[in-house]
Amino acid sequence: MKFDLVTFGEAILRFSPVGGDRLVRADRFDCVLGGAELNVAAGAAQLGMRTAYLTKLPRSRMGEYALERIKNAGVSGDSISWDEEDDDRLALYYLETGAAPRKSAVVYDRRHSSFTNVETEEFAPAVEEGARLFHTCGISLALCAQSRAVARQLVESYKAQGALISFDVNYRANLWGEEEARATIEELLPLVDILFISEESCRRMFARTGEIRQILKDFSTQYDIRMVATTQRKVLSPQRHEFTALVYDAASDRFFTQPPYQIDVVDRIGSGDAFVAGVLSGVLKGETPDRALRYGNAMAALKSTVYGDLPCTGLAEVERLIAEHDSGAAGSEMDR
Amino acid sequence: MKFDLVTFGEAILRFSPVGGDRLVRADRFDCVLGGAELNVAAGAAQLGMRTAYLTKLPRSRMGEYALERIKNAGVSGDSISWDEEDDDRLALYYLETGAAPRKSAVVYDRRHSSFTNVETEEFAPAVEEGARLFHTCGISLALCAQSRAVARQLVESYKAQGALISFDVNYRANLWGEEEARATIEELLPLVDILFISEESCRRMFARTGEIRQILKDFSTQYDIRMVATTQRKVLSPQRHEFTALVYDAASDRFFTQPPYQIDVVDRIGSGDAFVAGVLSGVLKGETPDRALRYGNAMAALKSTVYGDLPCTGLAEVERLIAEHDSGAAGSEMDR
Amino acid sequence: MKFDLVTFGEAILRFSPVGGDRLVRADRFDCVLGGAELNVAAGAAQLGMRTAYLTKLPRSRMGEYALERIKNAGVSGDSISWDEEDDDRLALYYLETGAAPRKSAVVYDRRHSSFTNVETEEFAPAVEEGARLFHTCGISLALCAQSRAVARQLVESYKAQGALISFDVNYRANLWGEEEARATIEELLPLVDILFISEESCRRMFARTGEIRQILKDFSTQYDIRMVATTQRKVLSPQRHEFTALVYDAASDRFFTQPPYQIDVVDRIGSGDAFVAGVLSGVLKGETPDRALRYGNAMAALKSTVYGDLPCTGLAEVERLIAEHDSGAAGSEMDR
Amino acid sequence: MKFDLVTFGEAILRFSPVGGDRLVRADRFDCVLGGAELNVAAGAAQLGMRTAYLTKLPRSRMGEYALERIKNAGVSGDSISWDEEDDDRLALYYLETGAAPRKSAVVYDRRHSSFTNVETEEFAPAVEEGARLFHTCGISLALCAQSRAVARQLVESYKAQGALISFDVNYRANLWGEEEARATIEELLPLVDILFISEESCRRMFARTGEIRQILKDFSTQYDIRMVATTQRKVLSPQRHEFTALVYDAASDRFFTQPPYQIDVVDRIGSGDAFVAGVLSGVLKGETPDRALRYGNAMAALKSTVYGDLPCTGLAEVERLIAEHDSGAAGSEMDR
Amino acid sequence: MKFDLVTFGEAILRFSPVGGDRLVRADRFDCVLGGAELNVAAGAAQLGMRTAYLTKLPRSRMGEYALERIKNAGVSGDSISWDEEDDDRLALYYLETGAAPRKSAVVYDRRHSSFTNVETEEFAPAVEEGARLFHTCGISLALCAQSRAVARQLVESYKAQGALISFDVNYRANLWGEEEARATIEELLPLVDILFISEESCRRMFARTGEIRQILKDFSTQYDIRMVATTQRKVLSPQRHEFTALVYDAASDRFFTQPPYQIDVVDRIGSGDAFVAGVLSGVLKGETPDRALRYGNAMAALKSTVYGDLPCTGLAEVERLIAEHDSGAAGSEMDR
Amino acid sequence: MKFDLVTFGEAILRFSPVGGDRLVRADRFDCVLGGAELNVAAGAAQLGMRTAYLTKLPRSRMGEYALERIKNAGVSGDSISWDEEDDDRLALYYLETGAAPRKSAVVYDRRHSSFTNVETEEFAPAVEEGARLFHTCGISLALCAQSRAVARQLVESYKAQGALISFDVNYRANLWGEEEARATIEELLPLVDILFISEESCRRMFARTGEIRQILKDFSTQYDIRMVATTQRKVLSPQRHEFTALVYDAASDRFFTQPPYQIDVVDRIGSGDAFVAGVLSGVLKGETPDRALRYGNAMAALKSTVYGDLPCTGLAEVERLIAEHDSGAAGSEMDR
Repeated sequence: MKFDLVTFGEAILRFSPVGGDRLVRADRFDCVLGGAELNVAAGAAQLGMRTAYLTKLPRSRMGEYALERIKNAGVSGDSISWDEEDDDRLALYYLETGAAPRKSAVVYDRRHSSFTNVETEEFAPAVEEGARLFHTCGISLALCAQSRAVARQLVESYKAQGALISFDVNYRANLWGEEEARATIEELLPLVDILFISEESCRRMFARTGEIRQILKDFSTQYDIRMVATTQRKVLSPQRHEFTALVYDAASDRFFTQPPYQIDVVDRIGSGDAFVAGVLSGVLKGETPDRALRYGNAMAALKSTVYGDLPCTGLAEVERLIAEHDSGAAGSEMDR
Repeated sequence: MKFDLVTFGEAILRFSPVGGDRLVRADRFDCVLGGAELNVAAGAAQLGMRTAYLTKLPRSRMGEYALERIKNAGVSGDSISWDEEDDDRLALYYLETGAAPRKSAVVYDRRHSSFTNVETEEFAPAVEEGARLFHTCGISLALCAQSRAVARQLVESYKAQGALISFDVNYRANLWGEEEARATIEELLPLVDILFISEESCRRMFARTGEIRQILKDFSTQYDIRMVATTQRKVLSPQRHEFTALVYDAASDRFFTQPPYQIDVVDRIGSGDAFVAGVLSGVLKGETPDRALRYGNAMAALKSTVYGDLPCTGLAEVERLIAEHDSGAAGSEMDR
Repeated sequence: MKFDLVTFGEAILRFSPVGGDRLVRADRFDCVLGGAELNVAAGAAQLGMRTAYLTKLPRSRMGEYALERIKNAGVSGDSISWDEEDDDRLALYYLETGAAPRKSAVVYDRRHSSFTNVETEEFAPAVEEGARLFHTCGISLALCAQSRAVARQLVESYKAQGALISFDVNYRANLWGEEEARATIEELLPLVDILFISEESCRRMFARTGEIRQILKDFSTQYDIRMVATTQRKVLSPQRHEFTALVYDAASDRFFTQPPYQIDVVDRIGSGDAFVAGVLSGVLKGETPDRALRYGNAMAALKSTVYGDLPCTGLAEVERLIAEHDSGAAGSEMDR
Repeated sequence: MKFDLVTFGEAILRFSPVGGDRLVRADRFDCVLGGAELNVAAGAAQLGMRTAYLTKLPRSRMGEYALERIKNAGVSGDSISWDEEDDDRLALYYLETGAAPRKSAVVYDRRHSSFTNVETEEFAPAVEEGARLFHTCGISLALCAQSRAVARQLVESYKAQGALISFDVNYRANLWGEEEARATIEELLPLVDILFISEESCRRMFARTGEIRQILKDFSTQYDIRMVATTQRKVLSPQRHEFTALVYDAASDRFFTQPPYQIDVVDRIGSGDAFVAGVLSGVLKGETPDRALRYGNAMAALKSTVYGDLPCTGLAEVERLIAEHDSGAAGSEMDR
Repeated sequence: MKFDLVTFGEAILRFSPVGGDRLVRADRFDCVLGGAELNVAAGAAQLGMRTAYLTKLPRSRMGEYALERIKNAGVSGDSISWDEEDDDRLALYYLETGAAPRKSAVVYDRRHSSFTNVETEEFAPAVEEGARLFHTCGISLALCAQSRAVARQLVESYKAQGALISFDVNYRANLWGEEEARATIEELLPLVDILFISEESCRRMFARTGEIRQILKDFSTQYDIRMVATTQRKVLSPQRHEFTALVYDAASDRFFTQPPYQIDVVDRIGSGDAFVAGVLSGVLKGETPDRALRYGNAMAALKSTVYGDLPCTGLAEVERLIAEHDSGAAGSEMDR
Repeated sequence: MKFDLVTFGEAILRFSPVGGDRLVRADRFDCVLGGAELNVAAGAAQLGMRTAYLTKLPRSRMGEYALERIKNAGVSGDSISWDEEDDDRLALYYLETGAAPRKSAVVYDRRHSSFTNVETEEFAPAVEEGARLFHTCGISLALCAQSRAVARQLVESYKAQGALISFDVNYRANLWGEEEARATIEELLPLVDILFISEESCRRMFARTGEIRQILKDFSTQYDIRMVATTQRKVLSPQRHEFTALVYDAASDRFFTQPPYQIDVVDRIGSGDAFVAGVLSGVLKGETPDRALRYGNAMAALKSTVYGDLPCTGLAEVERLIAEHDSGAAGSEMDR
């Protein structure tokens, strides 16, 4: 099989004022490319997985722009679908970074993007090549009816081929309501093997109550899901987070977690996707759930310390960080 | 009357790579706001005119972003219409600046913008306030059926009120075909008092032949236009232009021009609009056509020497430049 | 009446090394315009008040520079007086931002500025237009005899017209001694309706002792002042402040305060003025003292999170922050 | 003797908008230190001369700022006088760089600077240490009565000690009138050994007519001046100059010149002073007038290619450039 | 066969002062990776060729740094050899960009680099995979005995396999003498199929005289070389070059050239390598020599307009430029 | 005697990604010069000491680059030895700044530098000029056999002349093993008068156990060392350190310390050297050990708040900080 991991979703530009200035008066912007499922593919590629990204891009210089970044992230863009229409466009958003008590703020401009014209048959050759694991998330279900249908059909096709299916709920209130989200996702869950869901989504969207461990286990039981994971982030300040996660493994009927990382946050966007990338890479490498969790946490911690939506690391660095964190020793201040 | 000049059109963000780098590898962008008719209003405001801008903006931080720049340019944004829809968006484009033989390149992302949902009634109160002169251009006719209808209706309303009507052909091949453009514009010309048209549009879109002076005069005669102006730019190199213009004045049945400015070009975008701003300001000040032309040329020359779509100057500077250019003397190297 | 709020004072440029470098080795500087009373006018304008600024600027490109920033802040500069003398100049200061234990440092270069030649009659037309509230501060009294006289005369004129008079003690040891300051300010206090004074000034300059609440009330009683306010800032570190304030309202004979904001400080300069702007806007809007205090605190908190002397916000944002702070809930991490 | 060259004059900061933007909208400035006589001292130091600079600076961090730059230029600041007054200040100016037809523009803010309080006795110890050559220029005569008196007295003292006296007319119309300048300078000329004067000053201020060579010679004859030099710059465009000079040597009664340098101008400010530095260094090294001229031209050419008022080169580079220019061969494109 | 083109040589970092400042006072540097043979591989990859690069890099973060740039250029780095020694290092050089009459200057720091420890056997697997064309240049022969031996052995191995051999003389006087260079290269020429040589190297190193066309043809005849190419660059100014080339094709016994490109030079380094990349891509695509020359010229022209040693373009852009240049028409000013 | 302090060691460039980005993707670098013994000399010069630096630099523009920075730091570079060989080079390293849990990382490229060819006789004239104190550190012993021999011989020569000898153990595991380091340093200790050693080196390299005070005293007793100092840094976070030190004075047989500074860390590199500079300056000024410690701590604290390896302060600032710290009062927030 050509790829370990294939992901599907929308790539989106992020423009943020240089130096963290306010959006309203900025005249210079840093620009990075992201997208939840792209972030996952990129993170897994950095851990040595062969990954591909299914998306639809405008056939313009901005489409080339996106492709260049996808390829530079080590992700195959060979199966990307190209929008040849006159109204082709690349989704984008503007990000203002906050400072307490002023919150970060986002202005989305992702409607009518080339991605929203996506069709399942555009990825037929990709699907044929197969994958060991397929991943998508709630954003792809939420964006529009077309992307929802394609996401669903891809899940079915890959499942039919024997691939594992991974799904991240990733609820965005600005894209759809909780009611619609729940109904849509519930239809998908019977196909899912690995589920990522926040505690807030458990409690609000799915109206689950009680202890979080029991909730995760219930999802597993109810939908026959092999692994259910939830991140546990404590925001001490915008610049200081604690991060760990909780993973339920159905095979062993056990829960896994580890002491949190203390993080100096440079840019938190994409850290949840980095966690997903780490966990899936662990699974693909045949590691234990305990070790998959460690990959996930280390990836999330490292992503949080670098600018941009995409992680920027490698397997050696991740292994080193895990070992150090496990040892509990602070170690030297500097790698010389 | 509250305003000397009211213009109607779409405001558009321009993102260009810092330092003139290639688009495909840029990760930092300079951002300015422009739009042909906004550029005209801003230029006239800098020459002391009371101006207002009619457009439609998203009700988001990016709409505020645009409004802030419009107000800072000295232009009233009080009659701007605000798009409250979920899919509101601000038009934008990406600009890569060339270096011979590599050309500058533009990627537009202006479809589905809030402006394309514009309705005439949104500007009813503005129209009631009146104006001495109303200006729009071919881009507003080309963008979509809705903006075309609004532009047409505003021309009619202001004309009915006794305002002068100014129109700049401003043909953009990427927005519509020459055939459609010609037909649409021809319907508008009987309402126009001041016409700006390039020699290329005269010859290609309107299939006029012969000497340019005769062509301009023919437009005037045929449609009863008071003033017809065309710019004459000679691109010696991307960094060095010669610029002047030719104006036909129906009242005196005379042509006006002047020796060209030698320009060190910093940013040529918007220089044609600056020319329009200068000419219209001259007319509004009750200056002779000869002097209106001088305002236009000086504005175009000055705009070319500053970054951004909008001009950045003032009446005193423009007067000083005209006097110096008329004197033919190079003058001192520096204003101390 | 044309304006809700008119303020009088000196506008001053601030040059600070890019990236927070040491002054002595900097070769690139960020430049912003500020000035205590300009900051107040700008803040009130951002909360929807119609404001004007009385000052004197050099008739040079640097005067235009200042005017442009004043206008962009939404403040009317129509009544600014222009210095036509050869030795006209704009006040400025250099700021080095500290990092503990190295303190921030300021080098003033504001002597002999155009403002120090200010004359009351230059503002006669402005005074005639009237205002609902007039504000100035101790810096204007301290700068020179001329500015002191003008400040005093403007207070009298506006008072005579029925405007409320607001005064911020704003003591600067580098401009005058405590003795002189006290004597001068005491003469002014009988005219003051709203007084802003730091606890340190109460205790040192005015030698008041005892509980701060009693001190504030005593000022009110002694000079018949309607409202006396003092800010309460706790500097946890240069990057982390707690901020709230204490307001005494004579009409109700009550004190108002609220739990402090936790602030990630980006730039603390101008936050005291932003507090004044908030309180005065509350008063002008006819809000309760309790609510005026909330405007003040929210403005100070927001100002602290943005670069520059001037605030950069709007009424909607301030209302949102107040509601959130009152609710006590941290809310979501990001405005999407 | 401790120094080859001592110069006297005012040090002045230059603030210019980053990236050549317009002054009125700049919020980031590059800052360099200059001053005609400082530029001369720095240039001579780079050619290996032991040089000192006499000036008066504020006793503040900005005075330290200036001193640091003076020392880094290789010039002794040990005899600088320090202003301890409260209103001490460092002169400064704002520079907007033009692009044709928009001219460069300067806004001076040098009045009331610490330098204008200069007193001759402050330099008594310096004068005692002596120098082989003393240099000042017309700006020091023009700034104020005090600096004029000090300049005159220093010329007399150094002359009395046997030093050569060099003077650059350096007329600035914004500082004084031609009439006053002429009268003042004529009084000084009998003390001058080396005179730098522009052709324009010869013809306008001194009302000389006829061939420039004869004019230079006449100055020499009339005032017993050993060497009279004038630069000959041809401004092809703001970015492209031709530069050479004409020197009259009284001893040999000969004129010296050489074919002009073709210069890609990066920053022309200070290039005239660099010429002076080169010529004086040639004289101090005991070179022929012909060779002194070559040093001057090479220094002016090199200065024009670097940012800032001060030159940035060294003897080896200057020698290499002279040799190459004399050889007439373009040489290789790059020094590898 | 896996690759169309394999090249061998040293990758080298280039540090140049930001904004074109002088090296001696720079404190911020732009950094790009280059290397003659890497530039060729990257250019060919951008024209659609499958390319690989053989080099030796330090097993450190700086080696990863280089690898990342090689991969992002679309070139396979799978066969790179990694230096595990303690004294591993990446070659680098410092570049100061000139402005007439100040020349650009380079300081090399490439001795003792990891590359200088290269061994032929490190590339054995790569050689086995084969290539349709192998390219190296004189720098690899010059750097040290080890790299010279490896270059020679790789030429022999690829030749033996049936690959075409391309060689660029690329003489660098700072690396070796002309005598040694000539002797070494002469030994290699019998193995060469495509030769790139400058006219200066023809005349000085090889002491050829007479008409350049005859010289190129003589090389072909003497060493049985299929194609001999020489670039023809006319440096009008550092910012303005004319560029074309002359190619001799042995099969047809014809010379090919075309009218020169007028180039606004942004960065000339690497333009010769871009020419090689274009010509070789033409050959590999089976194009005529005439067309291969056109690829070469267009690549060199485009490279000259972008910053960095590596080209940044694509096949579509190159085809468009060739067509436009052939048409002789200037075309529109901008690609919209 | 011409110098108070002479130090010997290697100067090294530091390249770190602008804005703290990851090394692997950086394309812009900040560059500073440092080197443990240069940092000490520069710090002492800023406290008023006459200092000189002995090192060997390449005779290239990069050697000039280093010399310029050494001179600008106030340190004499007159006795620097110049490497005229073809393979001359300046040592350098790449620094990536971390954010927890990602550590800072360093890649050294200092092998084969010009310094490694250093010979004792190159400094013979310098040694003759003498010094009151000579300082070097363990890095100079570790770099190579040649530098070790020169360091040893310089210590002996200066000792023989009556200079005090200061030595900082400064162990770098990447340069040599603990065993070799211990043996080499033990040979040197009998010559040492002032010793700087970290607690970690005491315990690991020298295998000392027990209370740190006793360990320091034992070194003093065993090797007849006048003063033994160790820094005590507590890393609360990468951005927040506590710093103080412990000094043993043999003459009084007493220990000195003070409450720690709370530091907002901007750049910690070089803060240990700044401590050494402070202590040595205290000794050279004839201050008590208690006061020497205070100089050291204040210098280390201030260095930590500025970017670069070199300190950037002056005696007045250091005295002010010491007084404030001793007073225990936080003082005002800002120096106005």
